[in-house]
Amino acid sequence: MTTLRDIGEDALIARLVALVPHDPDPLAGPGDDCAVIDFGPDHETLQLLKTDALVGGVHFLPEADPRAVGWKAAARVVSDFAAMGGMPERFLVTVALPVETEVAWVEDLYRGISDCLNAFDAVLAGGETTRVPEGSAPVISVSATGSVRREHLALRSTGKPGQVVLVTGTLGGSIHGKHLDFTPRKKESDWLVSQYKPTAMMDVSDGLAKDLPRLAGASGCGFELDERALPLAAGCSVDQALGDGEDFELLLAIEKERVPGLLTAWVKAFPGLPLTVIGRLVEAGKGGMLRGGWDHFAVER
Amino acid sequence: MTTLRDIGEDALIARLVALVPHDPDPLAGPGDDCAVIDFGPDHETLQLLKTDALVGGVHFLPEADPRAVGWKAAARVVSDFAAMGGMPERFLVTVALPVETEVAWVEDLYRGISDCLNAFDAVLAGGETTRVPEGSAPVISVSATGSVRREHLALRSTGKPGQVVLVTGTLGGSIHGKHLDFTPRKKESDWLVSQYKPTAMMDVSDGLAKDLPRLAGASGCGFELDERALPLAAGCSVDQALGDGEDFELLLAIEKERVPGLLTAWVKAFPGLPLTVIGRLVEAGKGGMLRGGWDHFAVER
Repeated sequence: MTTLRDIGEDALIARLVALVPHDPDPLAGPGDDCAVIDFGPDHETLQLLKTDALVGGVHFLPEADPRAVGWKAAARVVSDFAAMGGMPERFLVTVALPVETEVAWVEDLYRGISDCLNAFDAVLAGGETTRVPEGSAPVISVSATGSVRREHLALRSTGKPGQVVLVTGTLGGSIHGKHLDFTPRKKESDWLVSQYKPTAMMDVSDGLAKDLPRLAGASGCGFELDERALPLAAGCSVDQALGDGEDFELLLAIEKERVPGLLTAWVKAFPGLPLTVIGRLVEAGKGGMLRGGWDHFAVER
Repeated sequence: MTTLRDIGEDALIARLVALVPHDPDPLAGPGDDCAVIDFGPDHETLQLLKTDALVGGVHFLPEADPRAVGWKAAARVVSDFAAMGGMPERFLVTVALPVETEVAWVEDLYRGISDCLNAFDAVLAGGETTRVPEGSAPVISVSATGSVRREHLALRSTGKPGQVVLVTGTLGGSIHGKHLDFTPRKKESDWLVSQYKPTAMMDVSDGLAKDLPRLAGASGCGFELDERALPLAAGCSVDQALGDGEDFELLLAIEKERVPGLLTAWVKAFPGLPLTVIGRLVEAGKGGMLRGGWDHFAVER
């Protein structure tokens, strides 16, 4: 009997996705931060679709501030839209909770969701409330539609060998608080896609050790990582920067010759926020490997 | 300390919805079977958004056939699109599962989802997989986009006093099996909105005792129900027909003078499937009341 613990998250997703019908357009299916829906050439924007979930005891502790949990639930999705160069629009929020949950807790959760929707000009379109059996963990599932201007769409699959890989902010140690109160890199993404459009981009949610290989793999590339260059969060080791996850920073690739201009302009646009060259894309089968990062079904970390 | 058990589902939703920003267009927010998004007059169709969830031990038992559970998870959402006169298009599926879950169980769940997507010409656009702590119930959260032709849009809020209320199929006893293998009334909805468009429509998911007052209330009406006329499922009492829930039938209102023509044409279009007059809408504050139906946070039923 094979369980989820045995095969891990990426293998599970690959198996499941193969079982279900998809749009003939691969961008409109699973594989990137969001699905990208093209309503036709007379539309200036593409629609983005995303779903994400938080589970009590996995993504937040019972004693966590519910308003921060609500913020996080919505902000993770905003981060995925930013990773595509887009913006969030309409949210569907499902909460599955034990009946013993305090109403005040759920109201604070929604206040946190509301904070995030207001901050990023999004609205609630609908939702669902249901109970879970006594003793079961609460689950908060957030789906949303968003949009991106056609020319701003940033995919993870369009990097090329020789391009330089950069990351915003610092990495590691998110568990000490940032994971509950991060600000999605929406402003930075807007600037990037309009000023120095990356050739490929995604957000770092499961740790660079998981997400850099994903960007390189989706682009049909290998990668080289300069671990000494990693922008470590205060007090963090390289292992933490690679493996902790929930950094919600932007990981991007760009042509080598555009890097100096990008870095100069970035410092003026976002003083105090690092944008760091951490490696490059190489031919598939070459370059390094990484282990670690967040796997939802690996309980012992 | 007030808990969810104390206030129940409808009161909770009212409180939560008030905390969160909405689209100025009320149709684009919570309140009907789906949110309705209008991209502008040059679009022949409106977009529909819906989210729904199934919880182990609440909506299905651990020993239930996972393929049937998957079908149900997707079919409930299809039923909501049908309730608006529309069709499903793109699904986002989140599964939150214990790591001890068998991979084969999850694959069968997705085969059931796939059966439903194939049956109704929909596709998977994305998803999320996460673990829940050991011993927690599995949660399957399904969101989807759909569409409806402008002229076919059926709301629950547009009934008028004097109009006749009808329901498709039979009611009650869903727990004995129908709740896991029902066919959403998509075909019947397509026929209704194009041939005899109801003035108001919704699907019966929480039991007529909950859903008839919802349709009447959303329409600013009261209602009269002829309990003797209820189309009881085999072996079911009136109480069961009113309160069991998960019937996934269509509940509709239509002008009195159109009823004879509708019933005559219905018999030809759907031989063997009852369409039954069960009451009428009346002025607000008049008519009857109903108790019972499914409340997610009322554990003792």
